[in-house]
Amino acid sequence: MMADEKKISRMLKTARGQLDGILKMVEEDRYCVEISQQVMATEALLNRVNREILSAHLRGCVQQAATAEDREKKVEELVATLDKILK
Amino acid sequence: MMADEKKISRMLKTARGQLDGILKMVEEDRYCVEISQQVMATEALLNRVNREILSAHLRGCVQQAATAEDREKKVEELVATLDKILK
Amino acid sequence: MMADEKKISRMLKTARGQLDGILKMVEEDRYCVEISQQVMATEALLNRVNREILSAHLRGCVQQAATAEDREKKVEELVATLDKILK
Amino acid sequence: MMADEKKISRMLKTARGQLDGILKMVEEDRYCVEISQQVMATEALLNRVNREILSAHLRGCVQQAATAEDREKKVEELVATLDKILK
Repeated sequence: MMADEKKISRMLKTARGQLDGILKMVEEDRYCVEISQQVMATEALLNRVNREILSAHLRGCVQQAATAEDREKKVEELVATLDKILK
Repeated sequence: MMADEKKISRMLKTARGQLDGILKMVEEDRYCVEISQQVMATEALLNRVNREILSAHLRGCVQQAATAEDREKKVEELVATLDKILK
Repeated sequence: MMADEKKISRMLKTARGQLDGILKMVEEDRYCVEISQQVMATEALLNRVNREILSAHLRGCVQQAATAEDREKKVEELVATLDKILK
Repeated sequence: MMADEKKISRMLKTARGQLDGILKMVEEDRYCVEISQQVMATEALLNRVNREILSAHLRGCVQQAATAEDREKKVEELVATLDKILK
């Protein structure tokens, strides 16, 4: 992975901590809307993680692809990723 | 919370397990695109969790709001939730 | 429709004007990234239109649903709408 | 633009026709939920247009970028586009 490993790990651990918190809220039978807000906050954090990973991928793996064949492979992966993101 | 507690807890625990898997992939320096795919899979799962919670909220809390005042409170919460979802 | 008709019509006409502009950019063979940006700007505008319509719907039709039967119908429509938005 | 001009123009014209239909629905004071559904259908169509444009851009402009400098420029544009899509 080209992205800053420490930063990504820290964000993922924060997201995991948030999920633990949400599981506790569910157990405690907290109000639906509060739980929904926390779930959306975790989704937003994972979205930032994904953006970090893909930006670093573009700047690293894609930009430095040396051969036409390697670039084609990278581009097809990006097209597939885009299809998922824009589905 | 109005949603099925067992189902929601199970989905959240699956998401937490996926995050553990992603953290391991990051440690093992796996390929960016594979990590990104797993992050998107977890986001999709949390999106389903949120949908379950909000559907049950609508069918429970909102539908059964007995007074006009209570309905107004619920509606304003839904407008705020919608603003976040459609931002 | 419960939303401000004039405001919604004005926003939709702006979106239509943007689409005319994008069609012209396509004809003129403009750069992909510029066209993509304009398409995303129009999507963002339509997203705001949808938010306006649904907020007014919640505050009007849903809040004022007089009978339990009417509320149930409105809630099921909202669940279906939410399923589309959070797909 | 690298994408198929005829296909993109046809999709954009369909979207424009949908907006005309939505404007008429607004004038005729049709039901909020029906109008919202049509707005979301047009957003989904524009999303497909954007996907077509960006896929063709990746396969054309990006893959064929000959120099390291040109690749860097393309990659920075893609990072900016991704930031908008994943915001």
